[in-house]
Amino acid sequence: MTREPLAAPSAVARAAAQVRLAALATPAGALGRLGDLAVWVAATQGCVPPRELTDVRLVIFAGDHGVAAHGVSAYPPAVTPAMVRTFLAGRAGVSALARAHGVSVRVLDLGVDDDLVGVPADVLAHKVRRSSGAIHLEDALSPEETRQALDAGATVAREEVAAGADLLLSGDMGIGNTTPAAALVAAGLGLPATEVVGRGTGVDDAGLRRKTEVIEAALRRAGSRTDDPVETLTALGSADLAASTGFLLEAARLGVPVLLDGLMAVACALTADRIEPGVAAWYAAGHRSTEPAQSLALDKLGLVPVLDLGLRLGEGSGAVAAVPVLRSAVALLRDVALLAEL
Amino acid sequence: MTREPLAAPSAVARAAAQVRLAALATPAGALGRLGDLAVWVAATQGCVPPRELTDVRLVIFAGDHGVAAHGVSAYPPAVTPAMVRTFLAGRAGVSALARAHGVSVRVLDLGVDDDLVGVPADVLAHKVRRSSGAIHLEDALSPEETRQALDAGATVAREEVAAGADLLLSGDMGIGNTTPAAALVAAGLGLPATEVVGRGTGVDDAGLRRKTEVIEAALRRAGSRTDDPVETLTALGSADLAASTGFLLEAARLGVPVLLDGLMAVACALTADRIEPGVAAWYAAGHRSTEPAQSLALDKLGLVPVLDLGLRLGEGSGAVAAVPVLRSAVALLRDVALLAEL
Repeated sequence: MTREPLAAPSAVARAAAQVRLAALATPAGALGRLGDLAVWVAATQGCVPPRELTDVRLVIFAGDHGVAAHGVSAYPPAVTPAMVRTFLAGRAGVSALARAHGVSVRVLDLGVDDDLVGVPADVLAHKVRRSSGAIHLEDALSPEETRQALDAGATVAREEVAAGADLLLSGDMGIGNTTPAAALVAAGLGLPATEVVGRGTGVDDAGLRRKTEVIEAALRRAGSRTDDPVETLTALGSADLAASTGFLLEAARLGVPVLLDGLMAVACALTADRIEPGVAAWYAAGHRSTEPAQSLALDKLGLVPVLDLGLRLGEGSGAVAAVPVLRSAVALLRDVALLAEL
Repeated sequence: MTREPLAAPSAVARAAAQVRLAALATPAGALGRLGDLAVWVAATQGCVPPRELTDVRLVIFAGDHGVAAHGVSAYPPAVTPAMVRTFLAGRAGVSALARAHGVSVRVLDLGVDDDLVGVPADVLAHKVRRSSGAIHLEDALSPEETRQALDAGATVAREEVAAGADLLLSGDMGIGNTTPAAALVAAGLGLPATEVVGRGTGVDDAGLRRKTEVIEAALRRAGSRTDDPVETLTALGSADLAASTGFLLEAARLGVPVLLDGLMAVACALTADRIEPGVAAWYAAGHRSTEPAQSLALDKLGLVPVLDLGLRLGEGSGAVAAVPVLRSAVALLRDVALLAEL
């Protein structure tokens, strides 16, 4: 992987955007968070007023998780390949949202526990393995697989940016994935399993206890290896989460802003920020998850979601639903008259 | 005014929409508030799945307020006609948002304290008077003017519905308008001025005290006339607020859903619901205002805003920013696969 060095969003553009915001023919502070978001977009673009966010691209990283066979999810693993096919057919929740808001969707199999016969080759081109390891019993990945997945995510980010992306989103699909994602957050923040665990797509009380035990066992098994973020991905993550982390890292290195979705995206953003401190300056948070680990990780990254609609669909849906909010922000800073023009 | 009788949104369509929502190939409850909003849209349309909200129309009711000469606002009344011209030039905050989200904007002068020379005749066609009365000293309107303004709003709603509106929004422009709007809420809920008053576009502490005193004096002056909602508009409202109330009432009578904006829209919705109990079933709340009176009135109406971005721009901006959230909701209930189809 050839790496771009990480630059911060432009301080010059940020300052100029703040000046423009203050010069708009609106009462001081009247744009609220839309003003702040517009300034952030301008800083990431190095451009005042900011350019419209026309070309918005979601990449869904799909993969299965060994823990799914251990009672941590309300759904069976067979749902993962079925949902990959549903994305490809354009019939999933995120497909509907993406169509409504002009967002392109690309789905990639990183570690689905199925051969996905008949699915287009480009969807399978980055597959690392069939399912990742059950993290309470074994490492999710080998170190080489972690590297391969990080590289795959970076490659995909480069492709999407080369194709013209103004804004990138990452989505997830994989039964059981809130367990490794919560483990990444616990490891990243030094918190116990009880503080990060949530009900995912709807596990019952017994499942929640089982999930907590699995995360506890996984953290115990990983031990001090969680001090290193890449080793954390190897021990506690998965192919899809490692790829998503590589995608988020590379987007920032290429200077393209990212709108984060729920727990999986934010766990990866936290991991990315551990690998490359400061990278989260390139990210905004789209939607508040009902999973406690997401809020804990967002607090650490200093991010506040723009939407809180109780979505718990995954797939990148909360980020896609938040795209129009960012477009609102950009429109205001671009198109409102300056007081001096009136 | 010929009045349509008020019907409730379709209970049959609501039930069918709930059945469809439960049958989607998504985890139970995973669509959160977007599921609820989609069911509401379907009930207002009497149609499952709901139709797309393609034709969305904002009408801005502009007018001045005698109280503005009494220290209740951070801005001078001359801003009102200047902003009418800015709307017409498409350079206001709400203009930028409306363009970004495909919402049409119509601005009407109901009571601007200016002749608006050179402004198109249709903008002035419904003008009731130049400025409404200073409500702590005199009635805002005569009873005849109140009726005229209510009728004007109803006429405009009929025009917009006849032109194809799938969804209506009301916006406001008028320096000082949060004072009569808060008074309408105080009267409607039986609350003292101290509980409903807020800083509007940014009045200082002295201005806030003055605003409270003005609302207190206005409520005292109106006395038991506030038991009647139309008399409340005459005593405490304004031409623009009465017209907006008539607009919201007629939209509901015509069976067209409304997405409410901030304090002014919600004060009018509360007044409309006092005139015609149950009318609020046709309304959803777009954006949480920083004005306490808006939250109090929304609680009474049983509405929860979909956005809370700290906007305090007025103009209908919070409602326009929330339009894509409703479109997200509709897209999900329309386009996601049913479990039975997979």
